Amino acid sequence: MSVAKRIGFILELEKLKGILRKTKPLGLERYENTAEHSWQAALTALIFLDHAPNQLDALKVLKMLLIHDIVEIDAGDVFVYDAQARADVAEEEDRAAIRIFGMLDEPLGSELLALWREFEERHTPEAKFAKAIDRVNPVIQNLAANGQSWVENGIDRDRVLAMNSQIDGASPALWRELEKQLMEADFFQQ
Amino acid sequence: MSVAKRIGFILELEKLKGILRKTKPLGLERYENTAEHSWQAALTALIFLDHAPNQLDALKVLKMLLIHDIVEIDAGDVFVYDAQARADVAEEEDRAAIRIFGMLDEPLGSELLALWREFEERHTPEAKFAKAIDRVNPVIQNLAANGQSWVENGIDRDRVLAMNSQIDGASPALWRELEKQLMEADFFQQ
Repeated sequence: MSVAKRIGFILELEKLKGILRKTKPLGLERYENTAEHSWQAALTALIFLDHAPNQLDALKVLKMLLIHDIVEIDAGDVFVYDAQARADVAEEEDRAAIRIFGMLDEPLGSELLALWREFEERHTPEAKFAKAIDRVNPVIQNLAANGQSWVENGIDRDRVLAMNSQIDGASPALWRELEKQLMEADFFQQ
Repeated sequence: MSVAKRIGFILELEKLKGILRKTKPLGLERYENTAEHSWQAALTALIFLDHAPNQLDALKVLKMLLIHDIVEIDAGDVFVYDAQARADVAEEEDRAAIRIFGMLDEPLGSELLALWREFEERHTPEAKFAKAIDRVNPVIQNLAANGQSWVENGIDRDRVLAMNSQIDGASPALWRELEKQLMEADFFQQ
């Protein structure tokens, strides 16, 4: 148990507050950072846990979402619709996870690294649920903001539907509602 | 189960990204917002759970820290060293909790309201631990930034020590280290 290592890890986390995403918080002119997104994703999981098709380990889901984007400290935020860039950055993200969780003492560092990899691999029920939840907030934000990040980046309705239909795996009722709103949205280019 | 209510709640959460605290993220010129603070507090709890003097319900601790500052959407951030303002805002915060968690369907809304009140009352082991963890990040941030928020607000060493000694209740080893660094810090006015 090393207190100094944990303090160093917490200071490292400060950097995630400076990593910017493509979405703006509703009503603000600035872009959202990955730290505040991670908070909202974990809280979104918390309020949709009762919709999950499987009985889930809720603690594992929340842990996953708290750490899921820490690798962006080294690898940056890569837009989810940029498939080539997402593939290119995968190795860099794994190296980032090894470095950043490696700042912690053992077994804590290895536990969080394994949890991050489980999230990325998307095989377990908790990882599938957490990955689907990670898609929810940008959709809700964009629907309330005339498709801000989609319009700015030229993402059309079909790509939004294809990317986010995995939300159905976390909450079928939520995806039905979001899909309906996406079909009715008038901000997509025809 | 109302999906529309939950979407409304998630959009309401956007406002917490615009509530500013007194501390700046390390290396950034802007003030920290309460959403990113809430993420870091939950993650700090996660890495110090093994230091807790009692066996804790880890899921409850993480839930508490994810929601603990949501009331600031209505009541604003009140500096923890301003005892009079903290006392004055207590009723407003409780009304805020009733309003904001009331946006959710039942029993979810009542469950989160009860959890928020449990945190505020600081009686249960989970609430005591979470409250102590909530003090950790500003101390670590300030120690790494020449006491930025303390110097800006005229908070001296004695008040910092008195306010944060409750960290000992979450992790005695962490408080020993932070107390030592606070005693050695040269940025406090004599």
